[in-house]
Amino acid sequence: MSGRVSDEEVIRRLEEFGKSIAMQVLKGMPPRMEIPVRTLSNTIWDEKRRILVLGPAKAKREFLDMKESRKFMQTLLMLSLILMARREGDFPTIRDLYYMGKHTIRYRDVHGRERTEETWNDQQESNSVIQDIEVATGLLREEMGIMHDAKGKIVGRIVIKSKGYEIDCSKLGSGAYAIPPNPDRLEIVRVEADYVLCIEKDAIFERLNEEEFWKRENCILITGKGQPDRATRRMVRRLWEEFGLPIYVLTDADPYGWYIYSVYRSGSISLSYESEKLACPGVRFIGLTTSDIRDYKIPKNFIIAATERDLKRAAEMLRYPWFKSEAWQRELKLFLRQKEKVEIEALSGHGFRFLSDVYIPEKIEKKKWIE
Amino acid sequence: MSGRVSDEEVIRRLEEFGKSIAMQVLKGMPPRMEIPVRTLSNTIWDEKRRILVLGPAKAKREFLDMKESRKFMQTLLMLSLILMARREGDFPTIRDLYYMGKHTIRYRDVHGRERTEETWNDQQESNSVIQDIEVATGLLREEMGIMHDAKGKIVGRIVIKSKGYEIDCSKLGSGAYAIPPNPDRLEIVRVEADYVLCIEKDAIFERLNEEEFWKRENCILITGKGQPDRATRRMVRRLWEEFGLPIYVLTDADPYGWYIYSVYRSGSISLSYESEKLACPGVRFIGLTTSDIRDYKIPKNFIIAATERDLKRAAEMLRYPWFKSEAWQRELKLFLRQKEKVEIEALSGHGFRFLSDVYIPEKIEKKKWIE
Repeated sequence: MSGRVSDEEVIRRLEEFGKSIAMQVLKGMPPRMEIPVRTLSNTIWDEKRRILVLGPAKAKREFLDMKESRKFMQTLLMLSLILMARREGDFPTIRDLYYMGKHTIRYRDVHGRERTEETWNDQQESNSVIQDIEVATGLLREEMGIMHDAKGKIVGRIVIKSKGYEIDCSKLGSGAYAIPPNPDRLEIVRVEADYVLCIEKDAIFERLNEEEFWKRENCILITGKGQPDRATRRMVRRLWEEFGLPIYVLTDADPYGWYIYSVYRSGSISLSYESEKLACPGVRFIGLTTSDIRDYKIPKNFIIAATERDLKRAAEMLRYPWFKSEAWQRELKLFLRQKEKVEIEALSGHGFRFLSDVYIPEKIEKKKWIE
Repeated sequence: MSGRVSDEEVIRRLEEFGKSIAMQVLKGMPPRMEIPVRTLSNTIWDEKRRILVLGPAKAKREFLDMKESRKFMQTLLMLSLILMARREGDFPTIRDLYYMGKHTIRYRDVHGRERTEETWNDQQESNSVIQDIEVATGLLREEMGIMHDAKGKIVGRIVIKSKGYEIDCSKLGSGAYAIPPNPDRLEIVRVEADYVLCIEKDAIFERLNEEEFWKRENCILITGKGQPDRATRRMVRRLWEEFGLPIYVLTDADPYGWYIYSVYRSGSISLSYESEKLACPGVRFIGLTTSDIRDYKIPKNFIIAATERDLKRAAEMLRYPWFKSEAWQRELKLFLRQKEKVEIEALSGHGFRFLSDVYIPEKIEKKKWIE
């Protein structure tokens, strides 16, 4: 069961983290904290659950270690800022937190010289400790009420409730519901769709929405505008987990598009700790694939030559455990051989409505997805 | 009076354009078309209306001129595609149109050799003729039903009607209404706001929405996520033109942010023909300004050093007619002297709610905007 972590629970967990440090100090012990390691070497592929997760490695951060005391201070400073915001019901952005906490510490060194130290020099430092607090408390920043950009949109057969208002996403006309930064604060009241279609390109989303594709097909359309952000992924995960909906991903036929599919499905390599709540192992890829170039008779002059970067990317993906299925291995090898990529819009060569009238329904009805 | 151009009117104007060419052919005249010139040299500052507009220069495009026949063919090809889509009620993206029209023309030259020519080689070519058709017919691509990305969001005291459904933007909870690519297709049913606040940064928009700033302040919040797209600008323009609402723009204190303000207000230099429908000369800038660094006691360590690029940009802006007001000249010169920039979030140094509780209301109530 997923669902929203209450503000009370968030405050409790943050306080607990702080209390464990305070207790050490009160007992006269050298303060230390344990933070799960977020490096690539501690990122593992969980074969059974089919998602990328953090491994068991933890790092000790000691206040009385010269190399770690700065980071120790930063972690506690950030913890106090987030806790304060939660207690006050405020919703700072990660950048607000950076400025809130940024100040100059003045002190005298052992020789009596006055010295200064910035609490953090740039946002990379403050963001890094936010991530540490995420893994240490098991709370996503969204759950801690931290705001950030949110680029996802949703439309179709779903009714959402937020702050007491019901939003029927089949009654938004030409527009859509902009997914908020923390979809866990939304209640999903009703879902009457047969599936969810995640669309890489916003322009394609707009087109399918304008022609009310979701009404004809009885589905939900979502776009994450390129690489989906955390809020979009969380929304997709909830629809899969709580409502058991099939999730299909539609992208261009290139390694960038295929990687988008894999982020929806398995999580991202650099932020594997999010996968527990964001990855969605039920996701299926309906294209475009390299095979589609032949199967859907894409004309030669629509084809784009793969770049060196594309080929390098595909070669890497060939080795990822989450691309080890027969279908993906075949597609990736075909791509490396043909060195050809194609955009979704290339299907419009067969007519404006080929994508919506033929391609998508056919891929889904005839189970021509890969995973 | 603005408002939506009906599909019938769009079809009529496109047909008229095509008919004028056909008539020339039927009369045995060498076919030619007249297209307003979209270059910088034909972009003029309309002092009276205070917007950037296209000048009177027009270029003749002749079919029987070797240098122009390719572009002539492309223009007619695109015209036919757009007209076909309108007649069928389809909503292609600019990229769909590229693929729809892309094909290889085979012919024999005067020596009997078989030759081939692509209708267009890349999307830049097909986009360019879409712009030509826009200026030639006086129709924006949005009005012609052409889809594209739309990144704007709106929330607050406004009720919109689209495809028969009423959307109350004060009842969307933590989310927002994603502005569709063509806001002219929306009916604005009711506006009960005192002003519109255009926010550069999406994360700030999310924060102000989450704390229901628009409810307290009785306003409408809009974000164009950085440089606003055409749909966001059109929405803002309609709220100003049809409802007489004051429009305030909130950005970082840097030339990039100030340019965003000027695009809302006066139009963009590279696409001045849009200004007639998108620019909004009533827009006011509430900050952040370079003066705010002193006035709002921004700490030294929050200040970011201006780059060479920033300084070059500001020096250019100093010369633009639409930055000639005393207030802007003073601010730009101050920036060039101090060489300092500041982010909106720097105000959080005074507390999470300083921006919403103090800064914005103060700037508006005390009329501390510049324009």
